[in-house]
Amino acid sequence: MPDADDYVRTRIGWSDPDRITVAGRDLAADLMGRLTLTELAFLLITGAEASPAQRRMLDAVLVSLADHGFTPSALSTRLTYTGAPESVQGAVAAGLLGAGSVFLGPAGDTAQFLADALVDAPVPRDDAALARVADDAVAARRAAGLRIPGLGHPVHRDGDPRTARLYALAAEEGLLGDHLRLLEAVADASARASGRALPVNGAGTGGAALVDAGLPPGSVRGFVLIGRTAGLVAHLAEERDHPVGMPLYLEVEERARPPGGTLD
Amino acid sequence: MPDADDYVRTRIGWSDPDRITVAGRDLAADLMGRLTLTELAFLLITGAEASPAQRRMLDAVLVSLADHGFTPSALSTRLTYTGAPESVQGAVAAGLLGAGSVFLGPAGDTAQFLADALVDAPVPRDDAALARVADDAVAARRAAGLRIPGLGHPVHRDGDPRTARLYALAAEEGLLGDHLRLLEAVADASARASGRALPVNGAGTGGAALVDAGLPPGSVRGFVLIGRTAGLVAHLAEERDHPVGMPLYLEVEERARPPGGTLD
Amino acid sequence: MPDADDYVRTRIGWSDPDRITVAGRDLAADLMGRLTLTELAFLLITGAEASPAQRRMLDAVLVSLADHGFTPSALSTRLTYTGAPESVQGAVAAGLLGAGSVFLGPAGDTAQFLADALVDAPVPRDDAALARVADDAVAARRAAGLRIPGLGHPVHRDGDPRTARLYALAAEEGLLGDHLRLLEAVADASARASGRALPVNGAGTGGAALVDAGLPPGSVRGFVLIGRTAGLVAHLAEERDHPVGMPLYLEVEERARPPGGTLD
Amino acid sequence: MPDADDYVRTRIGWSDPDRITVAGRDLAADLMGRLTLTELAFLLITGAEASPAQRRMLDAVLVSLADHGFTPSALSTRLTYTGAPESVQGAVAAGLLGAGSVFLGPAGDTAQFLADALVDAPVPRDDAALARVADDAVAARRAAGLRIPGLGHPVHRDGDPRTARLYALAAEEGLLGDHLRLLEAVADASARASGRALPVNGAGTGGAALVDAGLPPGSVRGFVLIGRTAGLVAHLAEERDHPVGMPLYLEVEERARPPGGTLD
Repeated sequence: MPDADDYVRTRIGWSDPDRITVAGRDLAADLMGRLTLTELAFLLITGAEASPAQRRMLDAVLVSLADHGFTPSALSTRLTYTGAPESVQGAVAAGLLGAGSVFLGPAGDTAQFLADALVDAPVPRDDAALARVADDAVAARRAAGLRIPGLGHPVHRDGDPRTARLYALAAEEGLLGDHLRLLEAVADASARASGRALPVNGAGTGGAALVDAGLPPGSVRGFVLIGRTAGLVAHLAEERDHPVGMPLYLEVEERARPPGGTLD
Repeated sequence: MPDADDYVRTRIGWSDPDRITVAGRDLAADLMGRLTLTELAFLLITGAEASPAQRRMLDAVLVSLADHGFTPSALSTRLTYTGAPESVQGAVAAGLLGAGSVFLGPAGDTAQFLADALVDAPVPRDDAALARVADDAVAARRAAGLRIPGLGHPVHRDGDPRTARLYALAAEEGLLGDHLRLLEAVADASARASGRALPVNGAGTGGAALVDAGLPPGSVRGFVLIGRTAGLVAHLAEERDHPVGMPLYLEVEERARPPGGTLD
Repeated sequence: MPDADDYVRTRIGWSDPDRITVAGRDLAADLMGRLTLTELAFLLITGAEASPAQRRMLDAVLVSLADHGFTPSALSTRLTYTGAPESVQGAVAAGLLGAGSVFLGPAGDTAQFLADALVDAPVPRDDAALARVADDAVAARRAAGLRIPGLGHPVHRDGDPRTARLYALAAEEGLLGDHLRLLEAVADASARASGRALPVNGAGTGGAALVDAGLPPGSVRGFVLIGRTAGLVAHLAEERDHPVGMPLYLEVEERARPPGGTLD
Repeated sequence: MPDADDYVRTRIGWSDPDRITVAGRDLAADLMGRLTLTELAFLLITGAEASPAQRRMLDAVLVSLADHGFTPSALSTRLTYTGAPESVQGAVAAGLLGAGSVFLGPAGDTAQFLADALVDAPVPRDDAALARVADDAVAARRAAGLRIPGLGHPVHRDGDPRTARLYALAAEEGLLGDHLRLLEAVADASARASGRALPVNGAGTGGAALVDAGLPPGSVRGFVLIGRTAGLVAHLAEERDHPVGMPLYLEVEERARPPGGTLD
């Protein structure tokens, strides 16, 4: 019999022989057929059901980050499948492991950076107030020798097509909040401080939009992995019919053979 | 410049400086704000957009399999976070790695088993025809000493609450197809052959329902990982505020100390 | 206080405030400075200390399987590091995940196949007896439509250079036992049955040699991962100074762009 | 034909049909049967063969960090095996993923911290000079609000039994160098600055000892994973015969059921 003082506790779910409870609701009767997966994720993380506006923003961000073709993560998933086709979960896991500080992780890092900067910012937060918050946050990062998260992109140098779309959607849905607004102010502050304008990128905008849609900043880095899993699963579906992993390996191995491939 | 004969090809997506193409569509203009993540996953895997009925079934299955509390996968995710809290993607990957032949994998295994059994089954497939297909498929598994996928559950011994709900939803949406019908016939055939009735379980029903909703059987095992990722991310959100991994480790380590914990 | 009936038990190790016990020995006083890592692994798995002959064979196999340059696993490790350089353990894990049924896994699969074939083989096992065991085992695999593990290699078509070396070492160390002998008999039986001679490959020989050196067949698939981890760690050391992951990703992405990279 | 300007280059290894080259040596003729796995790892990472003294220190550290019983990593490996017993590599990978900033990672973090502190330290480095380096390094960490790596242990509060053993071995082998010496000075400096003496822990000592034995500081975090892989493989061998994952999961699930297991 469980002990009421036991540390083993959860709000997420449990099973009885004839009933499964998830987020305090009856899974079969109350959740299946009513909620999308995105809505369930939000409910499990926040304890609250998403409004239609929130759901649209959450899905827009997940869709924006699900896939971009042959990313390092997608290649890693495909190469893992080449060696272990019986373990679909291993191939997906291998791809997720590349979603770190360089790729995809910046969505969560931007969310946390903006949330930290706003912790002590007085309300109301008009444009001038946010500009001051941005100047301080940018100055602190620069003093510590750190990059400003959410700015710049190696391919979309003149602006990331996802950024404008997410700002427009947020405005449309009434969810253009302090985090999205501060991110724009940060881009301006960074340009002033460095003399070099970098556009707000899609991952950073996505992170800010998720927080403005109600997700805790600390959950953004995990939340976007749901979208990435969808992309990696699609790569596996394609890899089965049109393999890239095996010929890529054979090509690289061939190119690595001496005399061309040796390192001094 | 790309070579038209290059094996490096994909339908999934690519990026230009001012445009991201996903599934042949403009990501920002055509997909973000319109599709849910579930719909995008279906589009990427099948190349077709899900109908409202399909989307409802896909989400119902993903929601049904997202989480059941402290599964081995959830525990693994939490224990990994205990050791490496800086790597959210590693904790999620560790949990996904447990979604194999015993847990969650049976959804995909059932889907493949049913699809294989139907490959040569003539149309129309009335109940008598499906009963014959089921008898043959069950006999072949039993002759090979293999379990029948999709039947039985260690907790839900008298019936899995997700099963009835998925069948009802499929009927409601006009998607109660040959795979779901065959799965019921398989349960009957198995009871006849073994003398022991096992109810159809939720994972097996989910796998059959996904194929009847249009997903290729070979993609079911990957597709359900999208749902599981959502559950694991929720566990991480909770673990940050209410840690279970560290006290669980300390308790197990204490219990393992001699004299109690030694193995002969 | 631990309960003597608790299932939480292990022979592997535990810690007290002033003493760490591993494999029933005092870690600091009895193991550190005396055993190599390879010897510790054997001790932990089997409960017995390796003889010098055993240790030489175990290391020879681990060295033979540690690395072969740009394998799919090595590429996956490097690409994961590209996206998440802060998580060394994630990059190594991603590489290990590709050690499945196609690459590296065959060492363990061969070990298990040979051990299963020998379970009922009467002793003494002279060459004629092993030839009969081999004929039966090969016939059973062929009847089931399965490949014979341990034979053939995509690059070393006329013989794998590791094979002859492992057989010579085993003979030298007095560890050329029934599994290595049966593997040769299996190659002959397969050639007789199929009309096509395939040489014994290095992974299969390694698996057989490990069992003849005293490792349980069921532990071979895990044991060889120790060697592979060493190879992947070396790739990461090189990747830091001479990156391959990022330029490989950028090259593939460029090649995938239309018109060349689209799939119909 | 390979292009001499290609970025695809490696020193680690490549294969020809009749020869495998690893670290510039003939694998079968020169490495197998001569080197231990530990020596091969050192050779691949540094390009040089380990002396007997170096090899003894490398193995002592790997042995010291291979396993400590039911760590979070070991539990994660066992729970993953519970769900996916067919994927040994997945279970090992899941355990490695917990070797991050809290567990095992501190070996590498200590190595890097000590190496960074020594970068600008003039030679000769007598005790007084190292004390000054230590004071500066400790002050800098404290000013940044960061912990001092390599100090303190939750179980071994009065001293880690591995620490004294590694210092003794290093002295015996003539490899007690600046990193091990500085680590002791850091413990003293930290006690002076904080007023609280924390003993040097085993992971930190191991990291310092590896650098004094010739390993680059940036490779320590990866190198110790080789040892941990050995420990995890041993846990899997034991888990097959004496399962802990499944009963642990069932116990936790039972304890989590309401009324005991709910979170408010």
